[in-house]
Formats: sequence, structure tokens, C-alpha cells
Amino acid sequence: MEASCAVHGNVSPRSRRTRLRVLAAAILALASAGSWAATPDIEAIQAKVAEQHETSVKRLQDWIALPSIAAEDLNSRVGAQYMADMAREAGFGQVEIIETDGKPGVFAVLDAGAPTTVGVYFMYDVKQFDPAEWSSPPLEAKLIERPGVGTVMMGRGAVNQKGPQSAMLAALHAIRDAGQPMPVNLVLVAEGEEEIGSPHIGQFVHHPKVRAALADSIGVFMPMALQGLDGEVTVSLGAKGVVELELVASGEKWGRGPAKDIHSSLKAMVDSPAWRLVKALDTLVSDDGNTITIDGYPTAPPLSEAHRRMIAAATSRRDEADMKKLFGVPHWIDDLPWQQANERLVSQPTVNIQGLVGGYTGPGGKTVLPHRAAAKIDLRLVPGMTRDAAVAALKSHLAARGYGDIEVNVTGGYDPTSTDADARLIQAQLSVLRDNGLDPLLWPRGAGSYPGFVFTDPPLSLPAGHFGLGHGSGAHAPDEYFLIESANPRVAGYDGAVMSYVEYLYELAR
Amino acid sequence: MEASCAVHGNVSPRSRRTRLRVLAAAILALASAGSWAATPDIEAIQAKVAEQHETSVKRLQDWIALPSIAAEDLNSRVGAQYMADMAREAGFGQVEIIETDGKPGVFAVLDAGAPTTVGVYFMYDVKQFDPAEWSSPPLEAKLIERPGVGTVMMGRGAVNQKGPQSAMLAALHAIRDAGQPMPVNLVLVAEGEEEIGSPHIGQFVHHPKVRAALADSIGVFMPMALQGLDGEVTVSLGAKGVVELELVASGEKWGRGPAKDIHSSLKAMVDSPAWRLVKALDTLVSDDGNTITIDGYPTAPPLSEAHRRMIAAATSRRDEADMKKLFGVPHWIDDLPWQQANERLVSQPTVNIQGLVGGYTGPGGKTVLPHRAAAKIDLRLVPGMTRDAAVAALKSHLAARGYGDIEVNVTGGYDPTSTDADARLIQAQLSVLRDNGLDPLLWPRGAGSYPGFVFTDPPLSLPAGHFGLGHGSGAHAPDEYFLIESANPRVAGYDGAVMSYVEYLYELAR
Repeated sequence: MEASCAVHGNVSPRSRRTRLRVLAAAILALASAGSWAATPDIEAIQAKVAEQHETSVKRLQDWIALPSIAAEDLNSRVGAQYMADMAREAGFGQVEIIETDGKPGVFAVLDAGAPTTVGVYFMYDVKQFDPAEWSSPPLEAKLIERPGVGTVMMGRGAVNQKGPQSAMLAALHAIRDAGQPMPVNLVLVAEGEEEIGSPHIGQFVHHPKVRAALADSIGVFMPMALQGLDGEVTVSLGAKGVVELELVASGEKWGRGPAKDIHSSLKAMVDSPAWRLVKALDTLVSDDGNTITIDGYPTAPPLSEAHRRMIAAATSRRDEADMKKLFGVPHWIDDLPWQQANERLVSQPTVNIQGLVGGYTGPGGKTVLPHRAAAKIDLRLVPGMTRDAAVAALKSHLAARGYGDIEVNVTGGYDPTSTDADARLIQAQLSVLRDNGLDPLLWPRGAGSYPGFVFTDPPLSLPAGHFGLGHGSGAHAPDEYFLIESANPRVAGYDGAVMSYVEYLYELAR
Repeated sequence: MEASCAVHGNVSPRSRRTRLRVLAAAILALASAGSWAATPDIEAIQAKVAEQHETSVKRLQDWIALPSIAAEDLNSRVGAQYMADMAREAGFGQVEIIETDGKPGVFAVLDAGAPTTVGVYFMYDVKQFDPAEWSSPPLEAKLIERPGVGTVMMGRGAVNQKGPQSAMLAALHAIRDAGQPMPVNLVLVAEGEEEIGSPHIGQFVHHPKVRAALADSIGVFMPMALQGLDGEVTVSLGAKGVVELELVASGEKWGRGPAKDIHSSLKAMVDSPAWRLVKALDTLVSDDGNTITIDGYPTAPPLSEAHRRMIAAATSRRDEADMKKLFGVPHWIDDLPWQQANERLVSQPTVNIQGLVGGYTGPGGKTVLPHRAAAKIDLRLVPGMTRDAAVAALKSHLAARGYGDIEVNVTGGYDPTSTDADARLIQAQLSVLRDNGLDPLLWPRGAGSYPGFVFTDPPLSLPAGHFGLGHGSGAHAPDEYFLIESANPRVAGYDGAVMSYVEYLYELAR
């Protein structure tokens, strides 16, 4: 899951005591209305969460000690087995490892005999790491004091995504061990390739028995620590799609220029693949770099009025100057005002250069004529576009412009994903967040990307999203952490995160 | 000195015995014509060269053990002192270290009381190296058998330029120790910054006493191992100029885009310095990458008939198919035939991309919008152009096209340099080469670059070139070597290289 780019305003959440009263009242109302769930003893569950705190924290630490990294072909099978065992211990009765052409997925069903079924999307893999860059060993998951934040657990995967996922599992332990009714049936899909772009998520999720189980659900959510340091939460209704690819110009494919790096003086008689790359890139965007000029590329649909209103509401609460300072950006594209810049962020597809690499890249210069140069590109896609169609348009554009020799090496990508604000999965989130004294913002779609399309696209066509209180930081970076004991009453610590899943599951059962 | 790009044909050199006879006859004729030099006993000098072989080889090994590397601020002062001591031991009576704003130069005069004075250009610095990449420790200068080549000395600086330079010094030792007359006065200028582009060569060479000493000379040559593996030699009448520079686009200088790498999803609202670099680069050359389109850039003067004839003669002896195979180039620019491709090589200025570097350059992708991207560029200059004028034209072009924020960071460069084929410095080379049974080719100008302009431009306006038999390879690369005992009678070993300097000095005295 890519990092969120949202900056939140401050609100005062109500106390834990208040929101438990609100939730208990809601559930009483639910029970008296003849709904399925027996009245749960929320205070008993909370007491169980507190009682199990050490065990739950230890479970997270043990999980972090076993990193599964698909890119390094490290611990994927043992990680899947570990995930399966954890699911079983948390009460999933049917647990299966599903093979794919890549790393295996873990499929599990907790049948509570409830009328409502909810899908849960986990990843058991983590991002690569270099221990030398960390201030605390990344697999030791030590508890560390972080001034102004609280006690955090520092380790690879702490927030992305083992911390929030372990909190969700701890919620299941607590509900069961407090002798309370499980409010919904759960279908768990845990993949092991999220950090390499989920290349086999379709194979896994569309496995007949997985798809059949999910088809009965009201939607799928991924546990996530959604709180910023101010406690505030933005509920996103989807995400742009993305294609990551390399454009490579080479003498070999071109049939001109050199087949290896040669002395730069030969430029006077030899063609240059690096110049060819520059010339091909030049055709992809307008002179300001901001409008896509790929022939036949889909245009973005206009923003809906509802989405425009969401953006207006959110931008009015976000500080433009803070954002500009955070990113070191003095002007948005075209000097757009804050709200229009956010509308552009939500609505526009992009062609971005992530990196340029060719020839000599060290300090100073080196007199070579490189035989190869590459641009690392990401395309962000909005609804109506697909990964495959975007790649096809790019390829046919290059061919039509005479650059058919430029390789288009796609390394990963997702289609865009959207969920309706009215979906129960979303409304239940808003309800829990408000019960916790928060004033959640809605956001049409994150500009980052995740493989939610596998749930929201046909044949499943389910709502999908992320949920969870709690806070963490440093996904993909050194010193990744997940908050365990919060110094700020507005921000949930570990037990608060666990209770947010308890509350969400009961809310989804309504 | 950049690597040569010439490929030589084969000819049969006459034997050493024959050429000694030829040289002795020439010198006898010279003496009888009333020239200054007493008749030298060339066989006595050759015997001394053989006798001093071990000492000379040891001197080179000791020199290689002390690398001076300006880029690493390593051993420059001690290297200059070492150079000064070697000059003194070789018979230079006046030896001085000349300070510059960079590394010191070594200036030395050997006053033989001769009517002819010859300048000699040395570099006492070497290129950086990584011992891990070498098959033999680069500072140990071991003698190693190289099949088909002979016994070579492997070490950093072996061929670039300590080997040839030490052979020149060994020639001076042998002439003196054989009791023979020194045929010419010598003015030595040894710089310590050649490998970083000679940034202070002007300061050193134009120091009043250095300039005054050189002004009396008939020209300046640099010792160099000019023989390919077939023994053949090309005499170059100069070199293109070069400017090495980086073009840098950054959010900071642009005042748009981010001041640090940010998440790539933000491309939809933030400008991209990487795209800006691509768009600016695009304006520098034609769509095929081969014609310079910098506004107001000087055009190349047409080739002279004499130069065209030299190129025709040389290309008729060089194998086009071999060259294409060597470089992995299936077609020259515009599918030019061999001779025209070489005319282009000699006559045309270039804008080459040495390297592209920006944002994420590792394996796979990374979802960043980079705050900075750079192109490493070299401009090759032909006569009529200067480094300063080329840089000024580039800067004013960028400013006029609205890219005034793109930094033009010049890291080094030389003006072009040319010497007339009729110069005594050149004719003496041809004479010695022919006396050695070789059939040297003339070449209008090398497409590589060296700081000869400091000698050939006003105020000195001297001929300048390179000379020396012998062979080596791997300049700037691992496993650099200089040939000590040759397996091929057509190629000079160490003593043969020494004798070539003996012969050249006597020839220059005629």
C-alpha cells in the first residue's frame, strides 16, 4: 500500500468512555430491533483486549521477526503457513493455502452463522529493508519511546501492514475469549506479493472457492492505521490505477547506435540511444510536462458534483501552506488555487518520470556514448481507464511516432478502483469514526494505488476500502513504526486500534 | 589522455638492426653537414638501455606504487616532489615546483647547450581505481604474461601515462650514462590534474618562467605508447576540444515542482523537474539526435582538401567491418559510407549524452516524483570553436527558450588543438617511424581530447603532439598495462620504447 498523501486538520474526539457508551447504546438499539447479533458486552471485550495486550503485542513482534519478501524470494511459503496458523488461532475454521503462479495466497473463512459476511484483505509480505539504515534492528520489533508520539514498535512491516492486521486478529481473539458473539462471518484473503505489485492477486482472488466465498460478502476491507498525528481520518472511496514501466532505448533494439558503451568522441559518426530516449519521451507530454499527448490516450471523465463537494469540504479543512511546505512546492501546476489543484489531483491521469538512468551516472563525467538509456515511468489511471488499455495506447503511440524499437517493460500495475460512499462498508466506517469523536473526511479517490480493483471490478463488483484507528509511519522506509501506547488521547494506541475493529465488525452487522 | 579510437592496418617493420643502421647513417650525415650534435654512438646507447633495463623497470614500478589522484586529493604534493626528483635524476639541471590554485606543476629544464629546444608534457597523476576490479593489485605493478602480447606490467598508470613517460626518462639516463651528447635541450612541464581535465594547466604553463622556457622550443610532445597490437601507428595532428558539463533541472532553481523527492501520485498537481530536463534537452539536437540545434552555435568549417586526403588514405587501410564489430554499430549516422563517416568524425562538433540520472535509478521502480534530474553532456569542439564560446551559446540558448533555470555546470574542458603536418615535431616522428619500418598514417585530428591547446593556442602557438613506440591498454579501466617484453617483433617492448625516444630526440636535433 502506498503512503497516503493526505494532511489532516484537528478535531477533538470524544473520550473512549463516551464512545463505548455510544456504541453500546447503538448495539442495544440494534438488538432490540430484532437484528441478528446478541447484545455484546463491549466492556467485557475491552477488558479482554487489555488483558491480552502483552500477548497481542508479542504476536506482532513474532510476526515481524519472520519477514516474507517476494522480491527477494524470501520466506514466502513459510510466511503463508504462518499467516494460516494465525488465522486458525484467531478463529477461522476453514484455512487454505491457495497456490498461484507466484507466491501462495492464504484463504480463510470464519463462519459465525451470521447473516452478514465481510471480506478482509491482508498482505503477509513486507518491503525490502537494509538494517544498516535503521536506528533499531528491523526484525527485533523493539518498543521505543518516540517523543510526542508515545511508545512505538519499530520494525519492518510494523505499520505496512502487520501492525494493523495483527490488531484486527487481536479483535477476533478478544471477542471470542470474552465469550461474545462474532457479529459477522469473515472471508480472509492474504496475499504475499503486495510489495511487488500483486501480480497474481487475480489468480488468487478469482480462484473459484475464494471468489464464491467473497461473492457473498458486503465488501472487502484492509486493516490500516488511518490516523495522522492529529488523530484525524480521511475515508477514501477508491484509488487511481497505476502502471509502472520502463521505457528503454538501446542500440541493440534500435539497430542503430552502439551495442555497448563506446567512447563519446564517436558521437560524430554513431547514433545515440540516449538521445533517442529523450526524443521519444518528448512526445508523451506537453511542453509543460503536465498534459498527456499520447495519441489515442483516454481522457479523464469530469468530476461528479458529489466528488467536487467532497474535495471542497476536505480542502477547506486542510492547510495549503502546510502542504506546500511539506512537499517544498511553491506553486501547484498552472498556479492553480488549492481546491482546483486538489480537483486535478483526484481527477487527472498522469505520466510521471520516476527516474532517468543511462550511461554514466556517478560523480562528474565519463566520456561514453551509452548503448542504452531508460526512463522509469508511472502512469496513474482514473476510472474508465485500465492498465492494459493504457499500455496498449502507449505502445501504439510509440510505434506510430517511429519509436517502435523503444521497449515498454511493464513491471506492475493496478486498474483504478472505486467504491460508492453509500456502501455499508463505508457508512459503517463513518459511523464508528464519528462514534469515536472524529469528524472523518470523505475523499473521492486516493492518488496512490492499491489492488482494490480485484474486488471492485467485475465479476465481484464489491465495495472495498481500508479501515482502522491507530497510527504509524515509515512504510517502505527505515525506522518504520506502529504506535503501541499513544501519548495523544486523540490518537489510538494498540488496544484502541484493536477496539476500532471490534466496533467496526459490530457496526457492519447492523 | 582519452583512449584512441583508431584501428590500424598491418605493415612489416624492418628489424631493429636495420633501423639502427639507418639512424646512425642519418646522424653521420647530420654531423658531417656541420650540425650541432656530435656523432652519437647509438649502439652504445642501446647497450646502456639494455644494461639499465631492470633499473628502469624498477623505477616505473616504484612510480606506480605512488598514485597521485587529484579527484581524491591524494598524494599530489608528494607526487610532484617525486616527479621533480625523477627529473633531476634523469639530468634536468633546473627543477621547480610551480604552485597553482589546484595541484602543483613540475617545471624542469635540461640545458644541453644545444641549438634546439624541445618541450615535453608529462602528467604525474593517474585515474582513480578500485582494486576489487583488478586481477592484479593495481599499485604492485606486477609483471604478468599476456598470451600473444608478451610480458606486461599491470598497474594503475602503467600506460596512462607513467610507462611511456618513464621510458622517455630512461632514454635520458641511457644517453648520459653511455657518455653520449644530449641532442636537444628539454623543457619539461608535468601537471598533476590531467585526469580531472587540467583545470589549472593554463596557470602552470603560462607562469612567466615556464612560458619563457617553452617559447624557445620547436614544440611540445607527450610520451605515449602509440602502437596497436599490430604495431602500426597513427600520427594525429591535433584533437577536438571538449566541454564536459551537467545540465541540471531542479525544483529549487525552477521555482516549480518539489524541493525533494515526493510521492509520484502528486504529479497530478505538482510540476516535474525531470520532464523539464527532457523538454530542455529536446531543444539541443535534431530529431535524429545528430545535428546541433543550439541557437547561434558555431558551425564546423569545411574539411580542407589535405585533411580529406589524409582521411581517404587512412580509411582505405582501416577495415570498416572490424570497426563496426568492435563498437557493435550496424550503421554509421545517416548510413554514411566509411570514408564519409570518418570525415564526419573528424569534422563535426557533437552534443553527446554521457549519462542520464534523476530520481530512482535502482532495479524496478519507485513511486517518486524526483525534485532533480541531470544529464551529463559532452560537447566536442572543432577548430574555430572555444570552450567558453560553446558554453556561452548553450546558456543563452537555454535562456532564450525559457529554460534559464536549468543549471549548466561545467566540470572541465579543453579548446581544440591543431598542429601543421609540416612541423618539425611531426616530420621527425614520421621519419623515426619510417626508420623503424612502419608506415605511419596521418590523421587530421583525434576525436578525443587533450589539453594541447595550451601549447598550440596563442601566446605560445607551438606545435604539439604525442610520440612513442610501445603498446599498452586499459587507460581508466581495470587491468591497465604497459608492454615490457613484446611477443610480437612488430611491437616495441620497454627497451624499444626507450630507444624510440632516443631516436626521436636525435631526429629532432637534425
